[in-house]
Amino acid sequence: MTEAQLNELTKQVDDMIYPYFPKEEGPQKRIFESMNYSFEAGGKRIRPMLMMESFLLLGGSEDDTDIIAPFMAAMEMVHTYSLIHDDLPAVDDDDFRRGKPTNHKKFGETTAIFAGDAMLNYAFETMLDDTIKEADDVWKAKKLRAMQVLARNAGAYGMLAGQMVDYLCENKKDVTLEDIMFIHEKKTAALIQAPLVMGAIFAGAPEEKIARMEQAGYLIGLSFQIQDDILDCVGNEEKLGKKTGSDARKEKSTYVTIKGLKEAKEDQVRMSHEARGLILSMATGPSLLPEIVEILISRES
Amino acid sequence: MTEAQLNELTKQVDDMIYPYFPKEEGPQKRIFESMNYSFEAGGKRIRPMLMMESFLLLGGSEDDTDIIAPFMAAMEMVHTYSLIHDDLPAVDDDDFRRGKPTNHKKFGETTAIFAGDAMLNYAFETMLDDTIKEADDVWKAKKLRAMQVLARNAGAYGMLAGQMVDYLCENKKDVTLEDIMFIHEKKTAALIQAPLVMGAIFAGAPEEKIARMEQAGYLIGLSFQIQDDILDCVGNEEKLGKKTGSDARKEKSTYVTIKGLKEAKEDQVRMSHEARGLILSMATGPSLLPEIVEILISRES
Repeated sequence: MTEAQLNELTKQVDDMIYPYFPKEEGPQKRIFESMNYSFEAGGKRIRPMLMMESFLLLGGSEDDTDIIAPFMAAMEMVHTYSLIHDDLPAVDDDDFRRGKPTNHKKFGETTAIFAGDAMLNYAFETMLDDTIKEADDVWKAKKLRAMQVLARNAGAYGMLAGQMVDYLCENKKDVTLEDIMFIHEKKTAALIQAPLVMGAIFAGAPEEKIARMEQAGYLIGLSFQIQDDILDCVGNEEKLGKKTGSDARKEKSTYVTIKGLKEAKEDQVRMSHEARGLILSMATGPSLLPEIVEILISRES
Repeated sequence: MTEAQLNELTKQVDDMIYPYFPKEEGPQKRIFESMNYSFEAGGKRIRPMLMMESFLLLGGSEDDTDIIAPFMAAMEMVHTYSLIHDDLPAVDDDDFRRGKPTNHKKFGETTAIFAGDAMLNYAFETMLDDTIKEADDVWKAKKLRAMQVLARNAGAYGMLAGQMVDYLCENKKDVTLEDIMFIHEKKTAALIQAPLVMGAIFAGAPEEKIARMEQAGYLIGLSFQIQDDILDCVGNEEKLGKKTGSDARKEKSTYVTIKGLKEAKEDQVRMSHEARGLILSMATGPSLLPEIVEILISRES
């Protein structure tokens, strides 16, 4: 998949999810401006893209993608709220994201807290409004279940569990591989699994395929993060001419610092291979999912 | 209604909602401890109480109250998350709530942000898990709609709109009565309307009664807040021997500072009277709702 094709797909997803942005009006206009500021600063829209392509891969019809558009938008809202709160001074304290001032730098901390809360809440409003309007009983049941998947994967048993443990590990002396795996699984993989599983549910896939999609999401998330640890280590090694990454300098334990570079690379290759295999084994419709997955697991920077 | 009777009812509600607290386990245990700390620090459980009593007032059966228990718990979770985030240094910066250290004072700011997010998310998880398990189609439809009401009233068109405008008004020179009304309606009334309306939906009330319950909630919320402004003004007048409340000293505009004490009192009496009338006009089953409403609108401290 070329850069141009990916951009084209991002544009297509943008066109599908933009109608679900809140209108900037009312006395509370500023909260909508703050929400949309971060929503519009979005990157490749990978998560809604994964949902759509999982749906298509498992036999969902191109004509039906507009039915799942509100859920694609909600998926991106959940991701966006997590970034707004992650950037806060009390969390990662980041001033810039994708070259633009972070939400609290632009709107102030109070508004950023409210906007994040509002964005998470709005994801559910968007899905509920759509589900209640849904006239088809089969689709209604699918939408209810998809909402449950997103809620679970975003909450204290999903993404937030990963954020919590990641934070706890910052002040922990003996971080274990188990800790790192938990953080990667929850903080990263959970929100990759969610869209893949939701797409599978929407496609009406059998339970066995839904489970395989969930496993694929787990492997993709893990591969992505291990690759991140590897690139950080190698990048710094090359740049600094010695065997140390920025994580190592900060004395932060990573998959690489615990298992060593060689074994980390082997694990990453094995997991990506398995993820690829799972995805390809399920294909029943034309979809760009294998190529998007390839981008996620094979990136070199 | 005596203090003892109210405490008894609070205990009954506590017993109904406690089973929906998250278990404190897993590597992310600390986020659950933080959530439960604030959940357990709860007061009278007025909002879930309003839901149950609205349900009973409109003919819901005492035997069916366990069916709505997960929604009563979710209602309290939404309220609790809003308190955790409200107390944060970047919002109201409060160190104590109900005599105990606020969440961020006890668990740190990072965890408090995560715990608030997790609590909002968990409210939806709780409602969705229950709705999906619901075998009765009529109840399922009611639950879906109740979820929508809570989502709407908690979000950027409800409570968060009020919080946003309240914050904006702190730095606004000419705060109008319209601003104050908007803040009271959204920040306070929205989460009183939500349980009343949800209870009415669960009781299977006709649309006209659901609308009347919504209007009653609006009036109760407004009365409550105007009474708050009055008590603050009068209390300080008595204490300080001069006509100024703590809000006035902080140069904060309130319903009283804009309309004057006399007219504010008249409005409060008129609104409470109307709210009482609406509630009583709807009663078709035995319920403590009129007495709980009385407590909310007639408090003297």
